[in-house]
Order: sequence, then C-alpha cells, then structure tokens
Amino acid sequence: MKVQDAIRQRRSIREYTEKIPADEKINKVLEAGSWAPSGLNNQPWKFKVLKADKKEGLAKFTKYGDAVKSAPIAICVFLDNGRTYNREKDIMAIGACIQNMLLEAYEAGLGTCWLGEILNRRKEVEKYLETDSDYELMAVITLGYPDEEATKGCRRALKGFILK
Amino acid sequence: MKVQDAIRQRRSIREYTEKIPADEKINKVLEAGSWAPSGLNNQPWKFKVLKADKKEGLAKFTKYGDAVKSAPIAICVFLDNGRTYNREKDIMAIGACIQNMLLEAYEAGLGTCWLGEILNRRKEVEKYLETDSDYELMAVITLGYPDEEATKGCRRALKGFILK
Repeated sequence: MKVQDAIRQRRSIREYTEKIPADEKINKVLEAGSWAPSGLNNQPWKFKVLKADKKEGLAKFTKYGDAVKSAPIAICVFLDNGRTYNREKDIMAIGACIQNMLLEAYEAGLGTCWLGEILNRRKEVEKYLETDSDYELMAVITLGYPDEEATKGCRRALKGFILK
Repeated sequence: MKVQDAIRQRRSIREYTEKIPADEKINKVLEAGSWAPSGLNNQPWKFKVLKADKKEGLAKFTKYGDAVKSAPIAICVFLDNGRTYNREKDIMAIGACIQNMLLEAYEAGLGTCWLGEILNRRKEVEKYLETDSDYELMAVITLGYPDEEATKGCRRALKGFILK
C-alpha cells in the first residue's frame, strides 16, 4: 500500500470482528511505533497490550467503552517520564509514534481507534493498569479486524492551513 | 512504497541538492499533514512555507542552521491556539501531522529534518515569522532533495518498550 493512500484513507474503526490478531502482527504495529523520530532519539514511549478480561475492564473508564469491548486488543501508550527531556517535544514524539502504529495497522488490514477521552480518568486508569509511576498514559489504541465500512474522512481545505 | 518500509527507512536529512521541489509537491506534503487524526477532528495545525531569503534568515535561530541553509524549503509548523481544545492532545496531533509529512515526503523522494532545538528561541522566531499570536511554533521541517547517504537508524529492542 502506498504511503500517500494509507495517510488519506485510514479511518477510526469502532466495530471489530472476533478474530484476534496474531502476536506477530501486534508486535509489528508496536515496532512501527518505535521507529518514530524523537528529540535526541530518546524514544520516550512504552506500550502495554491488553487482551480479554483486562481489556474488558478498561471499557468502564471511557464513554467509548463499546469500541474497547468490540476490539480484541487495546494498546495503552505511555510517556516514559524517566526518559523525557522536553515535555512538549516528547508528547509530539508520542503523537508521531501513534500515527506510525495507525498507518502500519491499516496497511496490515487492521483497524484502529485512537482514544483520548479516556485521559479524563487518567489516574484511575493508570491505577487499574498497575503501571510504574514513571509511565504516564497518553492514549489507548483499539486494534482488531474491522467489522464496519470505513466512513469518508473530512478535512478543511488545504489553503485554510497555510499562512502567508 | 510500502508504509512499513517508509516508517523504518526514513531518516533525517541535513544536506540537500539545490533543486527546488515544485509547489505541487510541497502542497502534497502539507496535505498529508492535514490528514492526521486530531481530537474531535479539530485539525489544530497551521503551516508556513519559507523559501529563499526568508528561509535563510531562519538559520541564525538554531545551531542546526546548516541544514536550514542547505534545504531549499523550510516548513514552519504551528499549533493554532484558536482551535485548541486540550493542549496535550493537540500537541500529540501536531506530532502525528508532522510524521505524516515526513513519510509522505520520503515516498516522494524528498528528504526532511524535524528541527526542535529552534524552539529554544521560539518567541524570537515567531517575531521573525510575523505570525499571529494565536499561532505557536512547534517545529521547523527542512525539505528538499537529499544530497547525502542516509545513515542507518537505531532503536532499542522492542521488548524494552513493552510493559508486562
């Protein structure tokens, strides 16, 4: 798949089939994330892969719990504050890391949904995940085989983004 | 080009040929950025494309000025604070936007370098760019045709990123 097509055609997927992606596929998605650029190449990301009951339990922390329940996999993405050197740049690196994962998954025939709303209950979720205090939850990515037609994306016209 | 290859093979390029990318190519790179996901699809990015003298003048604000001088184009990427809804999520969206641009450029045979160090002098640079106070500089991306061999990338082993 061409990069330019993946970038423009990828959409959030909230309904998934029951088929569970192979660990090898999941690891390739995580690996793609790890190839994102970061300031001083500090690679400030950590991942936690949730399946089955532990994944189900995550659903109650977000109003998008249906997507979490439907997806066979949820990838929790953390900022590793033990590796941070500049908070804003590190958060941008996390965004680049997540985008790599979304694109890699799309090319592999997998659907994803980037959940940010769950951060409204960040502290509770971190407690549920039993992660070290250095690791700060930045997003949850649902992952699985799509069971819905992708909707048409929309963006404002390019000229509206360009400053003279 | 496959998405998975672009993600893993793309490298920072700091030396460029004199050939100037066509406006159509530059706009395709910006458009790719605009297809990044953002919270509530708020699309909180703005771009300013610098060429020639205005681009040259940017070099003095960063210790990586040689890359700015060598590249025919510099894309300034801003967070549009008039559209922000959650600063951390918006900054992640900017990171995803930049990653799209780096990947799209790579597929198009163009090299890029994501400059963050220039933010040490953010206020001075914003003044030089004469941008509206709503627009906050988040990065400068150099763009052009590579005039160097890409170095080999390195990342820590995947297992080091995965939490149990």
